[in-house]
Amino acid sequence: MLSEATIESVQVLLDNVWILMAAVLVIMMQAGFALVEAGLTRGKNVANIFMKNLMDFCIGALLFFAVGYAVAFGGDMTGLGSYIGGDGWFLAGDGIFTYGTLDKFVFFTFQVAFAATAATIVSGAMAERTKFKSYILYSAVISAVIYPIVVRWQWGGGWLFQLDTPFHDFAGSTLVHMTGGITAAVGAAFLGPRIGRYGADGKPRAIPGHSIPLAILGTFILLVGWYGFNAGSWLAAGTEIGAIAVNTTLAGAAGAFAAMMTTWLRSGKPDVAMAGNGLLAGLVGVTAGAWVVNGLGAIVIGLAAGVIVVYAVSFFDKIKIDDPVGAVSVHGVCGAFGTLAVGLFSTIESDGIVKKGLFYGGGTDQLVSQVIGVAAVAAFVFVAAVILFATLKATVGLRVDPQEEIEGLDVHEHGFPGYSHAD
Amino acid sequence: MLSEATIESVQVLLDNVWILMAAVLVIMMQAGFALVEAGLTRGKNVANIFMKNLMDFCIGALLFFAVGYAVAFGGDMTGLGSYIGGDGWFLAGDGIFTYGTLDKFVFFTFQVAFAATAATIVSGAMAERTKFKSYILYSAVISAVIYPIVVRWQWGGGWLFQLDTPFHDFAGSTLVHMTGGITAAVGAAFLGPRIGRYGADGKPRAIPGHSIPLAILGTFILLVGWYGFNAGSWLAAGTEIGAIAVNTTLAGAAGAFAAMMTTWLRSGKPDVAMAGNGLLAGLVGVTAGAWVVNGLGAIVIGLAAGVIVVYAVSFFDKIKIDDPVGAVSVHGVCGAFGTLAVGLFSTIESDGIVKKGLFYGGGTDQLVSQVIGVAAVAAFVFVAAVILFATLKATVGLRVDPQEEIEGLDVHEHGFPGYSHAD
Amino acid sequence: MLSEATIESVQVLLDNVWILMAAVLVIMMQAGFALVEAGLTRGKNVANIFMKNLMDFCIGALLFFAVGYAVAFGGDMTGLGSYIGGDGWFLAGDGIFTYGTLDKFVFFTFQVAFAATAATIVSGAMAERTKFKSYILYSAVISAVIYPIVVRWQWGGGWLFQLDTPFHDFAGSTLVHMTGGITAAVGAAFLGPRIGRYGADGKPRAIPGHSIPLAILGTFILLVGWYGFNAGSWLAAGTEIGAIAVNTTLAGAAGAFAAMMTTWLRSGKPDVAMAGNGLLAGLVGVTAGAWVVNGLGAIVIGLAAGVIVVYAVSFFDKIKIDDPVGAVSVHGVCGAFGTLAVGLFSTIESDGIVKKGLFYGGGTDQLVSQVIGVAAVAAFVFVAAVILFATLKATVGLRVDPQEEIEGLDVHEHGFPGYSHAD
Repeated sequence: MLSEATIESVQVLLDNVWILMAAVLVIMMQAGFALVEAGLTRGKNVANIFMKNLMDFCIGALLFFAVGYAVAFGGDMTGLGSYIGGDGWFLAGDGIFTYGTLDKFVFFTFQVAFAATAATIVSGAMAERTKFKSYILYSAVISAVIYPIVVRWQWGGGWLFQLDTPFHDFAGSTLVHMTGGITAAVGAAFLGPRIGRYGADGKPRAIPGHSIPLAILGTFILLVGWYGFNAGSWLAAGTEIGAIAVNTTLAGAAGAFAAMMTTWLRSGKPDVAMAGNGLLAGLVGVTAGAWVVNGLGAIVIGLAAGVIVVYAVSFFDKIKIDDPVGAVSVHGVCGAFGTLAVGLFSTIESDGIVKKGLFYGGGTDQLVSQVIGVAAVAAFVFVAAVILFATLKATVGLRVDPQEEIEGLDVHEHGFPGYSHAD
Repeated sequence: MLSEATIESVQVLLDNVWILMAAVLVIMMQAGFALVEAGLTRGKNVANIFMKNLMDFCIGALLFFAVGYAVAFGGDMTGLGSYIGGDGWFLAGDGIFTYGTLDKFVFFTFQVAFAATAATIVSGAMAERTKFKSYILYSAVISAVIYPIVVRWQWGGGWLFQLDTPFHDFAGSTLVHMTGGITAAVGAAFLGPRIGRYGADGKPRAIPGHSIPLAILGTFILLVGWYGFNAGSWLAAGTEIGAIAVNTTLAGAAGAFAAMMTTWLRSGKPDVAMAGNGLLAGLVGVTAGAWVVNGLGAIVIGLAAGVIVVYAVSFFDKIKIDDPVGAVSVHGVCGAFGTLAVGLFSTIESDGIVKKGLFYGGGTDQLVSQVIGVAAVAAFVFVAAVILFATLKATVGLRVDPQEEIEGLDVHEHGFPGYSHAD
Repeated sequence: MLSEATIESVQVLLDNVWILMAAVLVIMMQAGFALVEAGLTRGKNVANIFMKNLMDFCIGALLFFAVGYAVAFGGDMTGLGSYIGGDGWFLAGDGIFTYGTLDKFVFFTFQVAFAATAATIVSGAMAERTKFKSYILYSAVISAVIYPIVVRWQWGGGWLFQLDTPFHDFAGSTLVHMTGGITAAVGAAFLGPRIGRYGADGKPRAIPGHSIPLAILGTFILLVGWYGFNAGSWLAAGTEIGAIAVNTTLAGAAGAFAAMMTTWLRSGKPDVAMAGNGLLAGLVGVTAGAWVVNGLGAIVIGLAAGVIVVYAVSFFDKIKIDDPVGAVSVHGVCGAFGTLAVGLFSTIESDGIVKKGLFYGGGTDQLVSQVIGVAAVAAFVFVAAVILFATLKATVGLRVDPQEEIEGLDVHEHGFPGYSHAD
């Protein structure tokens, strides 16, 4: 017999199937991050890098299940609850928060993949010199506490979402990427540069990565996963996912093109690693506004992000924040930029969700909220990261000893080299 | 005009789309298996390893189409039919078996991916010393006959499914993984250890794999594919896929964490390859119970599997079963363990499908059926594998000659090295 | 309240979700193409190869958005419009063409992935000696103009689709693969062979690729993506996607098996790279008829393509078209073969879409249309490619200078080697 519920139930199933597939795509991004970081660093640290990325996901998933999800989405959203949640530990309870028609386990799978992403971003900036034990501890704290608090503020219905003009960060340029990027910057600053990164004259010397194939394969995998990241953030099956996917494509493509052209014009040769980072920069940039900008806006954001990332990398080089893979520039700087860009290029006016941007006649309301959101998240993450890394430095220590750094973390931290030429 | 059929037809389409996507994820696991095996072995055999994995899928798919599917799912399920099928050769006939609302071709695609997995598991344990011709013949027999018979007993509606308390192996801890793992153990035993694997003193000497990046990239790809493997085994769109995915995530994560900690405590350093194997061990372990356990059960299974795999690897080392990638431990031992764990941790009582496990007040009924299923499959596969490998050894021969083994299978078996440094 | 629109709207959402997922799978093929090309060539050019594949997608996507989509699908289809479109630039306008129930952005995402594939195919044949600047320009022209015109003729509703018995190329054996393959042949001929490819005696000398792992990993990724390519070409959710997926599996498997056996019989050893190319040849071959052939037809097409590709590679070797990865043979020759095979093995008679093939009692009508389509596309693409490459050769130049070719394109074109062994 036909009943209203039947049609609805099919729609519910479709929503759940689609978001689970999107979550799987985002989980695949873990491989992409590992490959990019491994490719842009030296072969003597490659096993350490894969191990860090593996544990980001594994420890992060266990802790996000136990704690993080409750902090991000649990309990009611008034008072202190608009800053931090606290219900639904271990995903237990019938009243646990989920979104729309999504089964709580499907929503969790999507969210846990995002949490792992935030943690993984930091890995790259701290590569080639961080103690594995400290890394594990750091990664645990961001997955269980820091990232979930930031998510609470917006996707968990907290104070940023409760602004008169709500902050808008569709898929996480700020919540995921800038959170990762700022933590990365603090971590890299606490660690100091790798041995040999700056000459006796204080000038930066490039330490080339050991494998462009790994790096660009990782970039392609990240691109693929980003369709789940952005289009999946609609959190239901909707025809809107098409435009979101197109914006994702265009911004990434424009970012790669712009970064390539910028290096070509600056140094006379199109740089491959930077083109890959440009793709990622464009993707990070459009993530906040993937639903609210049009194709032109996506291209402008991508082009700008692709240029910005090149100059940001130079800037951090100059101030001696040694970030081997450019994570701070890609995720931190372009994450902030992309979030602010919503206030400029939003073409959509949806009551209580988002207002039109400045360039589309919407005034500065949305832009102001974007500034508030970016500034608040940046300030909180900065302070939290300083406390975290200062504590780790004072206790277990952050950095491996120089001999280990010179000989490679693979053998010293893990007992075996990442590459073996044994017969 | 509205009609009942219309709503149903959309649901049917959704089921088919979802299971086809899940099948594609499982097919992607072929790349994961190839990478893990290649990474954990030496560079001189790398082309051989990729070729074996390629042919597992290609020859396996052709034979499963021609023969295997009919053996697993064809004909009626009484009498001899509860042990072996025999209808629907070449997927022909209108009455051919499929599941629920699935188109027979969609169901076949999902099943053929599983068949390829079972065959591929063996490859790792027999790496670096098996004649390619023998490998091809073995792989053909498992895809066409051995694996399909085992599937017949349970998923094909055979005698294990017909037990008063049916055996429960949701996505194949026993049917797929243990079948592969036991065949792998027999194969490795028939072959004998690689030259140099044991010193003059009889003690094992590690032969390090040539590339952690390949191995862990493969592990990530397997993780991604496992969401199709487990959640797809619901064989329809259902909100249950969420909990299945979460159990998969938690068990894999717990397995990696436990294996890492076990090696850290045993040897003083967290071992990267073993952490990867721990992830796979956790995934194999939860595969049987992915639908019937809760999050806590999944974590317990994963933690246990992660510890078990480390000790199992040491055990097979000691008894001189040389398994270069740990396939017997990961798939055989943890496959059996995970299947038995259903009898302990099942929280679901579903008439004629599964009973609650011992720890959830369900008595020993399910556990007994699990023991029967594991023992029966193990016994059958063991005997079949002994016959198979004894026959191959007596005819075409199993092992390459020592010079070839020392110089590498790539050049001798395939004519070219896997890596070339030509200008 | 129930309404007809509600059921329809769920179906529409399902169609869009499925095709977006299929598009993502096709986009993943970019990584596969990059890996195959990189693996089958030398390490000194590997960064250049990844950069080319990255830019194929990025520049291609921007131009297909701006221009290509309008040329392929825009405007009305009569008169000149049956040869070239011209509306919907930048995907703008409400009346923009889409297919069936697909959102225009979803359809675009699927189509842009195909456009990138066509461009990428050429890269392999021109590897290791093409100026990057020329490559960029070529790639732009094919994505913006040449490929879209070919698509217009058939999928855009143009003259090939308007034949009394319409040309049938389900997922693009001709439109995508042969277009890429013929352009590749012309490009390789204009470039001339790599230094050292032919001895002083004029005989070909093999230049081995540097990494079978990269090449076969890429092959696996292409296989996975091909399910999106072929099954997605149904352009809606339908149970037909099952049979399409099975045909894809069988033809690919048969192609790999046949190519392996052919090399085994010819040279005494089963060749790994050629087995991989055989898989791709089978996939290319079945792409035109994936919907209209049955399993047997798919196997026959795959077996034939696997044999053909081996001999085609030898043939181009002999006539001194130096195609480092066999792209002309795989995509050009097997693309043409597979398209013609529709006229032989089609089992489906669907009014105005396709007729039965010769071997299934359908007469020669479909075969004649297939010949017309293949010949017309081949002729157009050949002429367009000659004009394109002649123009590039006469202006910016096609080929790097000999010193750069010998030392590698990575350092000369991009400033850094693809692999670094720095400490």
